[in-house]
Amino acid sequence: MTEHDVKDLSLAAAGKLKIEWAEQSMPVLRQVRERFAKEQPLKGVRLGACLHVTTETAVLMMTLKAGGAQVALCASNPLSTQDDTAAALVTEYGIPVFAQKGEDNARYYSHLEAVLKTGPQVTMDDGADLISQLHGEGGAGGSLARNVIGGTEETTTGVIRLRAMQKDGVLAFPVIAVNDADTKHLFDNRYGTGQSTLDGILRATNILLAGRSIVVAGFGMCGRGLAARAHGMGARVIVTEVDPLRALEAVMEGYQVLPMAEAAAQADVFVTVTGNTSVIRGEHFARMRDGAILANSGHFNVEIDLETLARQSTARRVVRPFVEEFTQKDGRRLYVLGEGRLINLTAAEGHPAAVMDMSFANQALSVEHLVRRKGQLERRVYRVPVEIDRDIARLKLASMGVVIDQLTDAQQSYLTSWTHGT
Amino acid sequence: MTEHDVKDLSLAAAGKLKIEWAEQSMPVLRQVRERFAKEQPLKGVRLGACLHVTTETAVLMMTLKAGGAQVALCASNPLSTQDDTAAALVTEYGIPVFAQKGEDNARYYSHLEAVLKTGPQVTMDDGADLISQLHGEGGAGGSLARNVIGGTEETTTGVIRLRAMQKDGVLAFPVIAVNDADTKHLFDNRYGTGQSTLDGILRATNILLAGRSIVVAGFGMCGRGLAARAHGMGARVIVTEVDPLRALEAVMEGYQVLPMAEAAAQADVFVTVTGNTSVIRGEHFARMRDGAILANSGHFNVEIDLETLARQSTARRVVRPFVEEFTQKDGRRLYVLGEGRLINLTAAEGHPAAVMDMSFANQALSVEHLVRRKGQLERRVYRVPVEIDRDIARLKLASMGVVIDQLTDAQQSYLTSWTHGT
Amino acid sequence: MTEHDVKDLSLAAAGKLKIEWAEQSMPVLRQVRERFAKEQPLKGVRLGACLHVTTETAVLMMTLKAGGAQVALCASNPLSTQDDTAAALVTEYGIPVFAQKGEDNARYYSHLEAVLKTGPQVTMDDGADLISQLHGEGGAGGSLARNVIGGTEETTTGVIRLRAMQKDGVLAFPVIAVNDADTKHLFDNRYGTGQSTLDGILRATNILLAGRSIVVAGFGMCGRGLAARAHGMGARVIVTEVDPLRALEAVMEGYQVLPMAEAAAQADVFVTVTGNTSVIRGEHFARMRDGAILANSGHFNVEIDLETLARQSTARRVVRPFVEEFTQKDGRRLYVLGEGRLINLTAAEGHPAAVMDMSFANQALSVEHLVRRKGQLERRVYRVPVEIDRDIARLKLASMGVVIDQLTDAQQSYLTSWTHGT
Amino acid sequence: MTEHDVKDLSLAAAGKLKIEWAEQSMPVLRQVRERFAKEQPLKGVRLGACLHVTTETAVLMMTLKAGGAQVALCASNPLSTQDDTAAALVTEYGIPVFAQKGEDNARYYSHLEAVLKTGPQVTMDDGADLISQLHGEGGAGGSLARNVIGGTEETTTGVIRLRAMQKDGVLAFPVIAVNDADTKHLFDNRYGTGQSTLDGILRATNILLAGRSIVVAGFGMCGRGLAARAHGMGARVIVTEVDPLRALEAVMEGYQVLPMAEAAAQADVFVTVTGNTSVIRGEHFARMRDGAILANSGHFNVEIDLETLARQSTARRVVRPFVEEFTQKDGRRLYVLGEGRLINLTAAEGHPAAVMDMSFANQALSVEHLVRRKGQLERRVYRVPVEIDRDIARLKLASMGVVIDQLTDAQQSYLTSWTHGT
Repeated sequence: MTEHDVKDLSLAAAGKLKIEWAEQSMPVLRQVRERFAKEQPLKGVRLGACLHVTTETAVLMMTLKAGGAQVALCASNPLSTQDDTAAALVTEYGIPVFAQKGEDNARYYSHLEAVLKTGPQVTMDDGADLISQLHGEGGAGGSLARNVIGGTEETTTGVIRLRAMQKDGVLAFPVIAVNDADTKHLFDNRYGTGQSTLDGILRATNILLAGRSIVVAGFGMCGRGLAARAHGMGARVIVTEVDPLRALEAVMEGYQVLPMAEAAAQADVFVTVTGNTSVIRGEHFARMRDGAILANSGHFNVEIDLETLARQSTARRVVRPFVEEFTQKDGRRLYVLGEGRLINLTAAEGHPAAVMDMSFANQALSVEHLVRRKGQLERRVYRVPVEIDRDIARLKLASMGVVIDQLTDAQQSYLTSWTHGT
Repeated sequence: MTEHDVKDLSLAAAGKLKIEWAEQSMPVLRQVRERFAKEQPLKGVRLGACLHVTTETAVLMMTLKAGGAQVALCASNPLSTQDDTAAALVTEYGIPVFAQKGEDNARYYSHLEAVLKTGPQVTMDDGADLISQLHGEGGAGGSLARNVIGGTEETTTGVIRLRAMQKDGVLAFPVIAVNDADTKHLFDNRYGTGQSTLDGILRATNILLAGRSIVVAGFGMCGRGLAARAHGMGARVIVTEVDPLRALEAVMEGYQVLPMAEAAAQADVFVTVTGNTSVIRGEHFARMRDGAILANSGHFNVEIDLETLARQSTARRVVRPFVEEFTQKDGRRLYVLGEGRLINLTAAEGHPAAVMDMSFANQALSVEHLVRRKGQLERRVYRVPVEIDRDIARLKLASMGVVIDQLTDAQQSYLTSWTHGT
Repeated sequence: MTEHDVKDLSLAAAGKLKIEWAEQSMPVLRQVRERFAKEQPLKGVRLGACLHVTTETAVLMMTLKAGGAQVALCASNPLSTQDDTAAALVTEYGIPVFAQKGEDNARYYSHLEAVLKTGPQVTMDDGADLISQLHGEGGAGGSLARNVIGGTEETTTGVIRLRAMQKDGVLAFPVIAVNDADTKHLFDNRYGTGQSTLDGILRATNILLAGRSIVVAGFGMCGRGLAARAHGMGARVIVTEVDPLRALEAVMEGYQVLPMAEAAAQADVFVTVTGNTSVIRGEHFARMRDGAILANSGHFNVEIDLETLARQSTARRVVRPFVEEFTQKDGRRLYVLGEGRLINLTAAEGHPAAVMDMSFANQALSVEHLVRRKGQLERRVYRVPVEIDRDIARLKLASMGVVIDQLTDAQQSYLTSWTHGT
Repeated sequence: MTEHDVKDLSLAAAGKLKIEWAEQSMPVLRQVRERFAKEQPLKGVRLGACLHVTTETAVLMMTLKAGGAQVALCASNPLSTQDDTAAALVTEYGIPVFAQKGEDNARYYSHLEAVLKTGPQVTMDDGADLISQLHGEGGAGGSLARNVIGGTEETTTGVIRLRAMQKDGVLAFPVIAVNDADTKHLFDNRYGTGQSTLDGILRATNILLAGRSIVVAGFGMCGRGLAARAHGMGARVIVTEVDPLRALEAVMEGYQVLPMAEAAAQADVFVTVTGNTSVIRGEHFARMRDGAILANSGHFNVEIDLETLARQSTARRVVRPFVEEFTQKDGRRLYVLGEGRLINLTAAEGHPAAVMDMSFANQALSVEHLVRRKGQLERRVYRVPVEIDRDIARLKLASMGVVIDQLTDAQQSYLTSWTHGT
C-alpha cells in the first residue's frame, strides 16, 4: 500500500470521479501529460510537493508521475484538503499523500516532514512552507538542500518570501516563480481567485451580494479579480490599498477608494487579498457595523488579526459551517468566515480546474525545465521561460476553439522598421 | 408531538441555527412579525402552505403563526427541501411539515394531501400545485374550496396557471399574485434568481465562468438577472427569446441574441428560465458540443426535455453530486444539473434571505389583506395592494440605512400642475 | 416658397446630407413611410408638430407628409434646433418650419402660434407645449380645439402634464402617450438619453469620466440609462431618488444612493433627469466642491434652480461653448452646462437615429390610429395600441438581422393550460 | 512677434479660455510648473516638441517654459491641431508654433524642419517623427544630433520605432520612453484612448452604440480601454489579436475573440488600435456589411488600408464632417472616419486633460531628468525613473482628495521576512 496519512480511504471512489471531472477542464495539462508519458523527462526524479490537496492538484501529480517522477504530496493549508481527493490519490493513483482536512498545526508540520523524508530533488510549493522548512531546520547547509535540483513556487506570497530569502543570501537552490508567469497570475490570481472567493463566501453565508458594500483590501491581481466579480454580482465595491498607483487604477475603474479605518464603518463584507499581515485589526473591528462579515483570500491567515478580535470579543460561537460569530462588548456581532483562512479553499473547492490548468501546466513544464538545466542555474528566483508561457496560452486558446490572427509578412517587417512616418 | 413527515428530527438543532442566520437578513419580515404578535390579525385562521422548505420559509411560517394562524407546510418541489430546516420547524417551532428532500412523486402528492386535510382557509403556493390539487380533485365545487377565504401565489409560473384558471372560469376563490408585486418580482426574480442560479451551478460543477459562453433562455426578470450575473462573472452571454420586445432589450444591453438552434452549437452552458416547456429539446441536444452543461432555473422541470435526452443517449451516470452525464451516440457528453429541477434550490440554498425578506413580507401582508377583506373579493387574480408594496420598499431601505430625498411642497405641486412650460 | 422662420436657408444642403445619414439608421420608419406613400392614410389631414427640430424629426415629418398629411413644425425647445436641418426641411422637402436655435422666449411662443394658425387636426408634442398653448388660450372651449381629432405626446414630462389636464377635466381631445409605448420609453429614454447625455457633457467639457463621481438625480428610465452609461465610462455613480422602490433598485444595482444634500458634497458631476423642479437648489449649491459640473437632461430647464444659483454667485462667465462658470462668495466655481437645458440636445445632437426610429414609428402609427378612429375615442390619455408596439419591435429586430425563437404548438398550449404540475 | 505658422491668430482668445479650462484638470502638472518656476531646472535649454497641438500640450509647453526652456512646437499629426490653441500659444504665451489643422504632407514636414532649425537640445516626440527626421536626414552623424542631450517619446508606436533604431545601432542619444511609465500607459492609453475614441466616433456619426457590434482590433492598453468603454455603452465587443496571451485575456473578460476575416462579416463598427499596418485590408472590406463604419485610434493612419479601399470602391464622398462613404462594386457602402487618422483627435478633442496631466507630468519630469543627467546616459531607450512614476500617482490621488492606507511598521517588516508560515 502506498504510504499515506489521509482521513478515510473509503472516500476514494468519490474522489476519483471528482478528479476525472476536473481533468475534463484541464486540456493543456492533459497534453503535457501525454508528452511526458512518451518522453519521460522526469524519469527517476524524487519530487516533494506541498500544495492544496484538490482535484486539480491530483491531475498535476498524475502528470508528474506520468513523466517518470516519484511524487510525494502534503497540504499547504490545514483546511484546504479534499479528503476524498486525497484518498483517491493514494488508492487509485498510487501517490503518497499526507494531508487531512482540519489537521492541527502539529500534524501539519509532521506532514511537511513526511515529504521531506522522501529526500525530494525537486520541491513544489504553494506559500513556500516546504522550502522554508527545508531551509529553516539545518536545511541550507544540510544534506537535504544539497540534493535539491530546484524548486517551484505557486503564489505571490511564496515568491515574496523567496525573494526575501534570496536577498538574505540563504536560498540554497534555484526556484522558479511559477506565480509570475503571465498565464498563471493574470488568470489564476485574477479570474480564479475572483470567482472562487465569492463562491466560498456564498457557500458559507448564502447572503445576497447585490446591494451590499464589500471592501476589497488589496488591488493586486487577486484584488482586481475579486473586485470585478463582486461588482458583477451587484455589490458596491470599496478598495483599500497602500500603493498609490494601484489605488489610482482602482479609482479610474470606478471603485471608491478609502483608508480601511473609514471603510470599516461603511461596509457589510470585508475580504483581504493583500499578502500582508493585520490588514484588518483592532481599530477596524471597533468601527464595524453589527453583522459585518470578514473573510480572507490571501495565502496566510494573518491578514485579519483574529487574536485581537478574540480578545476584544465577549463571546464566540459557530453559527453555520465556516461562520463564526464574535460578539463585541457593545453587542455588535462580527462574523469571520473559515477561521480567516483562504475562504475559496475552506468553504468552496478552490480555483476552478480551467485556470489551474494553466497554472499547473506552468508547474509541470517548469519542473521539466529545472531537471533539463540541472546544475546550470543559480541560487535565485527565476521567471518561467517566456516560451513556456506563450505555448500555454496558445494551447489553451486552441482547446477553447478560439482562432486568432497571424501577423502578415508586411506587418512583421513594419514592426521592426522605424523609417515609416506620418 | 407536532404532526409531520420529515426526514430526520435530529437535524433540528442545525436547522435552528440556520433559520436564525436567515432571520438576521430579514428585517422587514421581522417587523411584520412583531406587529402580528401584538395585533393577531390571523387569529384562528387555518393556513396551508406549499413552498420550498427553506430557512426563509421557516421565518415566514413563524411570522404567520405569530399572527395567530394555524399553519401546515408541504414542499413545492421534491428536491428543494432542507431537511434540517424541516426538522427544526417541527420540533423547535411546532409547525406541521410534510417534506423530505428527494421524495418521489407519490410522496410529494401525499404531502399536498396532508396539508389539504387540515382544511386550509388560506392557501399559499409556489407554483400553484396546492391550489391545482384543491381544484382538480373535486375542489372547486367541493367542500374544500368553499372554506377558502383566498390564496396567494409566489411565482410567475403559478400566476400564469392561475390566470388560465380564471380565464376558464374555474378559479374558486380570490388569489393574490404576490409574484407581481414590485418588491417581489423586481428583486427576488432578478437579483435572487440571478445570484442563486449561478451559485447552484458553481456548487454542482465548480467550473470557471469567465471565458465561457452561457445561454440564458428567457429574458424576463429571472433571465435578465441571470444574464447580468453571468456577465458579471466574466461569461459571454447569449440570450434566446420568443418575445420581440424582450429580445430587443437584450440586444440593446449588449448581449448576443440567437435562436436556440444556433446557440446550441456555440455555447458551453445553458440555463432555462422561461416558464415554458421543452425550451431545450432533441434538435438542440443534437447540436451541442462535447461537455455542454444544462441547467434549469424555471419553476418546473419541463424546460429541458429530459425524456428525449434520455432516449437519445447511450449511457448516463452521475459524475458529481447534482451532475449527470448523458453520453450521445457520437460520443459527445452532455451534463444535466440537478435533474433539470430549479438548480438554485437543488444544488444551492435558494434565494438569499435578503430578497426573500421582501417576497415573504408581501406574502404575510397579503394573507392579512385577504383575511381582513374576507367575503369582499371576487374569484380572480389580484395584485398586491400598492401601499403594501411601497411600505415594504420603505422598510427595506430603512433597514439598510439608506436615506432618500422627500418631495418638497413646490415639487409636489409642480407634478400635479400642467400650466408651466418651456 | 414654403412658409417658414428659420435661421439660414443656405444651410439646407448640409442639412439634407445629415438627414440622409439619420435616415440610414431608421429602417422601421422607412418601412412605415413606404406603406404610407401607397396607402395615404393621412390624406388631407392638417398636422401641427412641436418637436426638437433634428434630423430624426425631419425623417418623421417626411413620413407624415408621404402619408398625405399637411405638416407644420415648430421647436419644442429654444436651444435644440439644428438650423441646417430646419433649412433643408423648408427648401428640400417643402415643410413649413418655425424654429431657430437660440430663439428667445417671445419668438419661441410666436412659433407655437404660427403652427396653431395652420388649424391642426392632429397635434404632436414633445413636452405638451403646443397642446397647453392650444388649451390655455381659450383653447378647450374654442374653435381650435373643436377641430382636433387627437394628439400625441413624446415625453414623460408631457404625459405627466396631460394626465394632470385629464384629471382636471380640461383635456379637449384624445391624446396618445407615445412615451409609454415599450418600444419608446424602454429604448429612447434609457439607451437614447443614456448615451446622448454623456455625449453632450463630453462635447461641452471634454472631461475624463473615469474616476469621477457623478450624481444621477432620478432613477426612472432616463436615469437608469444614464447611470448605466456613466458607470460604463468608469465613473462612480451616486443616485438620488424620492421613490423608495426605485431607490431600492438603484441600491441593488450596486449604486450608492444618497439624499442630494449629502451627494452634493461628494460628487464631481451632477445630472438631473427627474421631470421635477428645483431638484438641485440653493442648499445644494452651497455644499458643492470647487469645479463641480451641473447638467440637466430632463425635459424642462427647471430641474436645476438657476435663478437661485445666479443670485448666490458673485460672477458668471462663459468659459467654453455651453459651459458657464458661476463663482460663489467663497471662491468656489460651479459650472452649468447648456443653460440647464436638455444637454443632449444643446451640446450634442440629441438621441441617435436608431432609437428615434422606434419612437417616431410609434408617432407615425399613432397618428394613423387617431385618424382611423376619428370620433371613436374619448377625451383622455391613451396608451399606444399594443400591436403597434410589438410590430415595431419585430421590424426593428429584423432590420438588425436578429432572428428569435418561435413558440412551438406544444409551448403555446402549455402556456394556456393549468393542469400540469410538479 | 513670436515666430509661427498657425492658421488664424484671431482665434487666440478662444484658445486661451480653452487652455485655462484644461489647466483646471491638470493639478499635477500645475504643481510641477510651480516648482519649475522657482528652480529653473531647464534654464536656457532649447527644446523641440512634436506633439498633438491641443490645450493639454499648451499647458505642458507653458510648464517647460516656466522651467527656463526655449520651446518650439510642431504638430505630430496633420489633423489633430486645434487652431485656436495654436494661436493662443503664439500670442498669449509667446511660444513658437508651426501647425495648422489639415495641413498637407509637404507643410507637415516643413514644420518638422522649422522646429529642427531651432537646434533643439532636447526632443519631445509623439510618434517619433521629429527624432526620425533628425536621424534620417544626415542626423545621427550630423551636427543636429550632436547637440542633443536626449529625447522623450509619448507613444507605444514611437517607442517601437525607437527600440528598432536602438537595435539597428543608429540611435544617436538617450531617449526616455514616457509611454512606458505606469502613470502614463495605464491611464492615458487605457482610460484616455478608451473614452476619447468613442467620443470621436459619436461626434462624427451620432450613432447609437447600444446594440451594435464593435470590433476592437488590438488588446493592448488602448484596446482594453476601448473595449471596456464600448461595452460600457452597450455595444457587443469582438476583439481581434495576434498575441495569444492577450487574446486569452480578452476571452476571459467575456469578449468574443475572432480572426478579423470572420469579424469583418459580423460587426457594425471597426476600430484599430494595434500600432501595426493594414490590420483591416482588402479581404476584410470585401466581407463587411452595408453601412459598416471604420475608424482608427492607433498612432498612424496605416492600420486601415485606405489605398486598397479606394481602389476597390466605385465612388466616394463626404457625407458628414469626418465621415467618408466608399461605395463598393456590389453596392455596399463603407464609412471611414477622419481619413483613418486618430479619430479621438480628428473628430474630438483628444485625451481629456485629467489623463494628460499625468502623461505630461512624466514628460516634464523626464526632461528635467535628462538635463540633470546630461552626459551620463547611454544611447538607448530608458524607462521613466520609478520614483517619478510613484510621485505622480501620489500627487494625482492627493489632488482628487483620495486618501490611502500606509504600511504599519509590522507590515513593512512582515513583507521583508520569510520565516513566518502557515
